[in-house]
Amino acid sequence: MSRPAKIQTVSFIGSGNVSTALALGMLDKGLRVVEVYSPDLTHAGRFAGFTGCNIAEDLSKINKDSDLYILAVPDDKVKEVALMFPEVMGIVAHTSGITPLEALSPARNYGVFYPLQTFTLGQHVNLEEVPFLVEGNTPEVTKTLQELASKLSHSVHNITSGQRKYFHLAAVFVSNFSNHLYSVAWELLEEQDLDFDFLKPLIRQTAAKIDTMPPLDAQTGPARRDDRKALDEHLKMLENHPELKELYKLISGQITKKYHE
Amino acid sequence: MSRPAKIQTVSFIGSGNVSTALALGMLDKGLRVVEVYSPDLTHAGRFAGFTGCNIAEDLSKINKDSDLYILAVPDDKVKEVALMFPEVMGIVAHTSGITPLEALSPARNYGVFYPLQTFTLGQHVNLEEVPFLVEGNTPEVTKTLQELASKLSHSVHNITSGQRKYFHLAAVFVSNFSNHLYSVAWELLEEQDLDFDFLKPLIRQTAAKIDTMPPLDAQTGPARRDDRKALDEHLKMLENHPELKELYKLISGQITKKYHE
Repeated sequence: MSRPAKIQTVSFIGSGNVSTALALGMLDKGLRVVEVYSPDLTHAGRFAGFTGCNIAEDLSKINKDSDLYILAVPDDKVKEVALMFPEVMGIVAHTSGITPLEALSPARNYGVFYPLQTFTLGQHVNLEEVPFLVEGNTPEVTKTLQELASKLSHSVHNITSGQRKYFHLAAVFVSNFSNHLYSVAWELLEEQDLDFDFLKPLIRQTAAKIDTMPPLDAQTGPARRDDRKALDEHLKMLENHPELKELYKLISGQITKKYHE
Repeated sequence: MSRPAKIQTVSFIGSGNVSTALALGMLDKGLRVVEVYSPDLTHAGRFAGFTGCNIAEDLSKINKDSDLYILAVPDDKVKEVALMFPEVMGIVAHTSGITPLEALSPARNYGVFYPLQTFTLGQHVNLEEVPFLVEGNTPEVTKTLQELASKLSHSVHNITSGQRKYFHLAAVFVSNFSNHLYSVAWELLEEQDLDFDFLKPLIRQTAAKIDTMPPLDAQTGPARRDDRKALDEHLKMLENHPELKELYKLISGQITKKYHE
C-alpha cells in the first residue's frame, strides 16, 4: 500500500465547526466521509447525522485505510493526536493556523489543510471563496492536498508554516477582535434599550469598503479627525465601563497617532 | 413665508463625504440641490461638479429660500454655523451623531438628519438600507424630515439626541475601530510580504455572521477558547510591535474574561 495520489475517502478527528464545514463541502464534491472520532459523543453524533459517516468509539480503533485524516482538534492537541497515526499510509493533515507542519511528523505522509475563515455552527460558509493554505511534508503530498482544496475552493495557496501563522494572527485581529467590538456595541445599546440591528448596514459597509480601498484610506471617525470634543464626550459616556473606556482610549490613541503624528 | 411642509430644494453647508452621499441620493429622488458652501473651495467645486449646484462664496451670502439646509460640518462647528441661520424659514438640520439637537437653537426650524453609516469618497453606499435617525424641534419638523428620509431609505427612525449619541458611540466601535483592526492586519501581513486579500472573505463573513446570530454567540478564536498556547505564540510574534501587543493583550483579556469567568 502506498500514499494515495488522489483523495477519495476521508476520516475526521474532531467534530467541531471546521470539521463539519469541511466534511459537508467534501461530500458535496463527491468524496466519501467514512468516519469521525470525537471525545465528545454528542458532537460526534451530530457530525455523523450531518454526514452519514460512522463513529469511531476510540482513537485507537479508527479505520486505517482512509486516504486522508483531517485533524481538526484544538491546537494544543495536534501533536498528541498525531502520535496515533504512525502506521497509516493516508495523509494526516491538521487544520490549525498556528501549529507547525512538523507537529505531525510522527505520521508518514502529513500536511496542513487550513481554511482561512471563521466557522460557526448554523452559519453557512461558501467554501469556494475561502483561501485554503496548504503545505505537505513532500511535494507529492502538497500536490495532493492542493488538488483536493481546488475541488472545494478557487483560492488555494501553498504557504509555509512560518507564513501561515502570520495569516492566523492577522485573522484574529480582523475577525475575532472585530467580533468582540460588535459585542461591545451590542452591550452598550442593550443597556440603553436600543436596537443593535440599526448597526448592521454599517458593519456590512465597513467590511465591504476593504474590497475597494486599503484600510488606511477607509478610516473615518472622531479619532481619524482628531475631534477632541467627540472623543471626550465618548469617554464620558463610558465612565461606568472602565474596561470599555480603556479599550476606547487605546484604539482611538493608536488611530490618532497614525494620522496626526 | 412659512416653514416648508415638504422639502423640494436643499442647500448644503459642508461638502465632504456625508454631504456628497446625501446630495446624490436626493438628486436621485427628484429633489433640487441648489447650493453648497464649503471653506475649502476645491471640495466645494468637486461637490458642485457632482451635483450641478451653485457655489456660495461666503456663508453670509448663502441663498435664504431653500426648504432645507443640511449642515454636514465637523461636530464642533455645528453651533457656530447655526448662528448664521436665524433668519431663514427653511429647516436647518445637522448630520452629526454626537451633537445635540439644541446646538441648532439659533435657527427657527431645526432638526437632525443623521445617517448611521460610514461614507468614504469613491465607495458606493446604498442609502436605501441606511438607518436615518431624525429629530425635529417641533412635531411638524420631525414629520417633514421623516418624510424626506423615507424617500431615501426604508429605515427611518425618530430618535432623541440622548439615544443618538449611543448609536454614534456604538458605531465608532463596530466601524472605526474594526477598520483600525483591518489596518493592523494589513501592516502585519505587509511586513511579511503576504497578501492582505486573503483576509477579505474572512472579513466579509465575520460581518455577515451578525445577521444571523448575536455577536456573543459568534465569537471564535484563541481567546474565546482560552487557548494559552496560541495566545502566547501570538504575543511572541508581536514582540517588536509593543502597541499591537498591548492591543492584542487587552482585547484577548476581555474576550477570555467574558467567556471564562
